[in-house]
Amino acid sequence: MKNYTIKEILEKGKTIALQEVTVQGWVRAFRSNRFIALNDGSTIKNIQIVVDFESFDEELLKKISTAASLKVRGEIVESQGAGQEIEVIAKTIEILGEANPDEIQATILQPKQHSLEKLREQAHLRFRTNTFAAIMRVRNSLMFAIHQYFNEQGFVYVNTPIITGSDAEGAGEMFSVTSLDMDNLPKDEEGKVDYSKDFFGKHTNLTVSGQLNGEVAAMGLGKIYTFGPTFRAENSNTTRHLAEFWMIEPEMAFYNLDMNMDLAEDLLKYVIRYALKNCPDDMQFLAERFDKEQTQKPANERSELSLMDRLDYVLNNQFIRLTYTEAIDILMKSKHNQKGKFQYPVEGWGTDLQSEHERYLVEKHFKTPVILFDYPAEIKAFYMRLNEDGKTVRAMDILFPGIGEIVGGSQREERLDVLDQKIEQFGIHAEDMWWYRDTRRFGTVPHSGFGLGLERLVLFVTGMGNIRDVIPFPRTPKNAEF
Amino acid sequence: MKNYTIKEILEKGKTIALQEVTVQGWVRAFRSNRFIALNDGSTIKNIQIVVDFESFDEELLKKISTAASLKVRGEIVESQGAGQEIEVIAKTIEILGEANPDEIQATILQPKQHSLEKLREQAHLRFRTNTFAAIMRVRNSLMFAIHQYFNEQGFVYVNTPIITGSDAEGAGEMFSVTSLDMDNLPKDEEGKVDYSKDFFGKHTNLTVSGQLNGEVAAMGLGKIYTFGPTFRAENSNTTRHLAEFWMIEPEMAFYNLDMNMDLAEDLLKYVIRYALKNCPDDMQFLAERFDKEQTQKPANERSELSLMDRLDYVLNNQFIRLTYTEAIDILMKSKHNQKGKFQYPVEGWGTDLQSEHERYLVEKHFKTPVILFDYPAEIKAFYMRLNEDGKTVRAMDILFPGIGEIVGGSQREERLDVLDQKIEQFGIHAEDMWWYRDTRRFGTVPHSGFGLGLERLVLFVTGMGNIRDVIPFPRTPKNAEF
Repeated sequence: MKNYTIKEILEKGKTIALQEVTVQGWVRAFRSNRFIALNDGSTIKNIQIVVDFESFDEELLKKISTAASLKVRGEIVESQGAGQEIEVIAKTIEILGEANPDEIQATILQPKQHSLEKLREQAHLRFRTNTFAAIMRVRNSLMFAIHQYFNEQGFVYVNTPIITGSDAEGAGEMFSVTSLDMDNLPKDEEGKVDYSKDFFGKHTNLTVSGQLNGEVAAMGLGKIYTFGPTFRAENSNTTRHLAEFWMIEPEMAFYNLDMNMDLAEDLLKYVIRYALKNCPDDMQFLAERFDKEQTQKPANERSELSLMDRLDYVLNNQFIRLTYTEAIDILMKSKHNQKGKFQYPVEGWGTDLQSEHERYLVEKHFKTPVILFDYPAEIKAFYMRLNEDGKTVRAMDILFPGIGEIVGGSQREERLDVLDQKIEQFGIHAEDMWWYRDTRRFGTVPHSGFGLGLERLVLFVTGMGNIRDVIPFPRTPKNAEF
Repeated sequence: MKNYTIKEILEKGKTIALQEVTVQGWVRAFRSNRFIALNDGSTIKNIQIVVDFESFDEELLKKISTAASLKVRGEIVESQGAGQEIEVIAKTIEILGEANPDEIQATILQPKQHSLEKLREQAHLRFRTNTFAAIMRVRNSLMFAIHQYFNEQGFVYVNTPIITGSDAEGAGEMFSVTSLDMDNLPKDEEGKVDYSKDFFGKHTNLTVSGQLNGEVAAMGLGKIYTFGPTFRAENSNTTRHLAEFWMIEPEMAFYNLDMNMDLAEDLLKYVIRYALKNCPDDMQFLAERFDKEQTQKPANERSELSLMDRLDYVLNNQFIRLTYTEAIDILMKSKHNQKGKFQYPVEGWGTDLQSEHERYLVEKHFKTPVILFDYPAEIKAFYMRLNEDGKTVRAMDILFPGIGEIVGGSQREERLDVLDQKIEQFGIHAEDMWWYRDTRRFGTVPHSGFGLGLERLVLFVTGMGNIRDVIPFPRTPKNAEF
C-alpha cells in the first residue's frame, strides 16, 4: 500500500474516499480524546483523525500528545464536522515517537503562540510550526520557479566557485578560508603567514559574488545563471543582512541594459506568479499573518496595501524606469527633502542614494517598483559600462516597496581600453584579472547581468520583516548555531 | 526585431525561412573567404553564414578570424551544401570584437585539437570549446532534472548552511572559516587562538555535508532535499576528488531503507533519461568522443560498452541489490581474489571495500549497477540505523560502472537510546548534538536519506574521465585560479 502524504490525501481524498489509507505525521492537537489534528509537513493543512476511544487502549491514548508522531491506518470518510471535507476513522494507531508534555514545555512545540525570536532560537524545531513551514514551502516554490524560468529561456546553470583566490570585486569584507592549523601558522621571513603552505598555495576567501566567473562563462555559453551561496563578513546586525545568503546572478552575452531590465522584471513577475499559484494555502496563511501584524503597528508604520494587494500590484504594473539623474531631481524637489525629513539630506547629483531615499521613491512618490539606471560612475563598480557622457555608467537597481534594492545589475564594460582605465582608477591589480581581461581580448561582446538576493525576494513575497526568518539556519554575527 | 539564439534559428529555421534575422556569436571558422561557422553557446551546432566577399569591405573581411565576435544581419535560406538545413546570407556584418590571430596562438581558441589538461589551464576560455560547452549543457540539464524530479515528488528544497560550527559528521578534513586578521590572531591565556573574537564567536568550518541539518528539516517538512556546495580539505590529487563539489542530499521522514533505495534508483534513471532527451546533440558529440577515446586505450582498459549503451543499460535494468555480507562472499570466492589479483585482498567479513572491489562487483561480476546494503556498523557513520543483528547498519551504497560509489545513504537511527550509545562510541560531544538529539526526543520517526555527488553523476553521463573536466572552475590542492 502506497504511503500518501497528507497533502495527497486531502487533494485526492474525494476520489479515494472510503478506502483504507496509512497516514503518518506529528500531532498538532488532540481534542476531547477523539479528534487528532495530524500534520506531516507536506501542507499547512492538518488531517483530522477520528478516534473511537473505546476501541483503543488507554495507555496508548495517553501517549497521543502534541508533537508526538503517529502511524494511523484508517478509512477515509466525508467529514461530518466543519473545516474539512474528509477525515480518517482510525482503525489502528501506532505511536512512532512520544513527546513528553513536560519536556516540550520549554520548546516552541508546545501549543501556543511563540514570538519569531523564540522560533529563531530553536531553529531546529521551527520547521514544525505553521509559519516557518509555510515560508519554507514558498521559498522552495520561488527557487524552483527561478530554475524553471531560466531553463525555459535557454540559460545554462553554472556553478561558480565558492572558494576564490581573487578579491577583485571588492563588494565587502570577506571571510578567509584555510586548512592551516590556526594555532600553529607557518610564517615567512617577514613574519607574515606563509600561504604557500596552505591548501591552495595562496590566501583564499569565500566568494562575495559569482559575477566575474559568470561573465567568463557567458562569453562561451551565451546565457548563463548562477544560483548559490555568497558571503559577507560585515558586522551588520540588521533585519536585512546575513553573513551567508543565496544569490541568483544571470549573465547574458549580446544583452544591453534595456534587455537586462526587461529580463529582470519578467523574472520577478514570473516567480511571484508561480508562488501564488503553487502555494495558495501557504500564501493565504502568510497574508493573514501579515495583515494581522499590520493592525498591531502604529498607523504611520502600517503598510498601505495588504500582502496580496502588494503582490498583485507588482504583477499588474510595469515597473517605472528612470535615470539616477531624474531620481535626484525628484528627491531634491520633494517636500520631504526640503523640510529636512531625510536623515541624509539629498544635496545634489553624485550622492549615493540611501535606503530612505529609495523607499521614498518607491513607497511615497511612485507607489510601484522602480528601476533606477545610469548611475554616477564613482559610486558604482569598475566593471559597469561607461556611458557616452563619460560620467555615468549603465547600472540599474530595482527597488521594491518594503524591501528597497532587490536587484542590482549593469551592462558590463566590454571595451578593453576603457576597462583597463577603470581597473587602474579603482586600484585593482590588473595581473589578478588576466583571465577576466582575456574575454575582452578575444572576441569581446556587449553583455549584461544582474544579481537577485533570494532572501530579499522571499521576504517580499512572504511579507516577513526579518531576513533571519526566511532562511533555514541564519548566519549572523556571533551566530553559527545548528 | 527579436534576437534569436542560434539554437532557436536552427530549430525554427524552416518555419521562419526567407526572413531576415540577426545572428550574433563567435567565429569558429572562416573558409574560402565565404563561409563563416558561427557559434553562440546555445547549441553545439554552428550556423553557416554565407558571405559574398565582393559586397564587403576587404578590411572588414580581414577581421573575421577565429574567436572574433560578429553581429550579422541576413536572410535565412535553405542550404545548398551538405551538413546543414539552413544558412544565412549575410547582408550586413558588424565586428563586435576582434581576436588577433597572433595572440590567440597561445590559447586554446586557436583551431586545433587541445588536450583536456590544456583546457583546464585556460578554464576561462574552455566554455568556447565544443567539448566543455557540451559538458556544461549536459550538467545544466542534469541539475534541472534533479530539481524537477524532487519538485514533482513533493520535496522541499532546503538550503543548509555552508559555514558550520559543528564538525560532528566527521566525514573528512575541513576548511576553517575566519574573519580574523590571520597575521595578527588574538590569543587567549593559553596562547591558543581566541575564537570568541571571531565573526561567529567560535571556530567555524566549511560544511562537509548538509545531512544533519537536512534531517532536522525533514522532521518538520516531511520530504526535503539539499543541493549545494560541500568541501573536503583532503590532499587528494586524483581524477575523482575535488576540494569543492556539489552534492544533492534528500532526506525523507517515514522512509525505510527499501524506499530510500527505490527513490535513489528512480532519481538516477529519471535524470539520465532527461539529459538524453534534452541534450541529444551534446550527448551524441560526447558519445563519439568517448568511443574514440576508448579505441586509443590498451585493450584491457577499454570500456566494454559504448557510452550510449552504458547509459541505456542503466536505464533498462533494475539495479542489483545485495547485502554487504553477500558481496564479501562473492569477492572471497572470486578467482580474482584467490589468484591475488586485488591490491587489497579480501580477507573476510568486516573489511572496508576498496574501489577495486566495488568495480569488480559492478564491472566484472554483475555488469550492472549494484546497491550494496547492511554494512558492518564499525565502518559506517554513527547516525545509521542499527539492525537487529547488532552488528550491521541500514546503510546503502550505489555503485556505477566506471565511477564506483555514486550514492551513499542510509536509514537513520531514530531511537534516542541507540543513537546516544553510538554518539558515545564514536567519541562525539553529545552537547554539540543537542539540536540533532532533540528531533529524537520529540516525536521521532523512522527516516532515511542519501547523498549524490553531482560531479560523479556528470562524469558518468558524459563519459569523461577526470572530475576537473565536469565542473566550471575546479578547486584542487594548490589550485584556486580564476
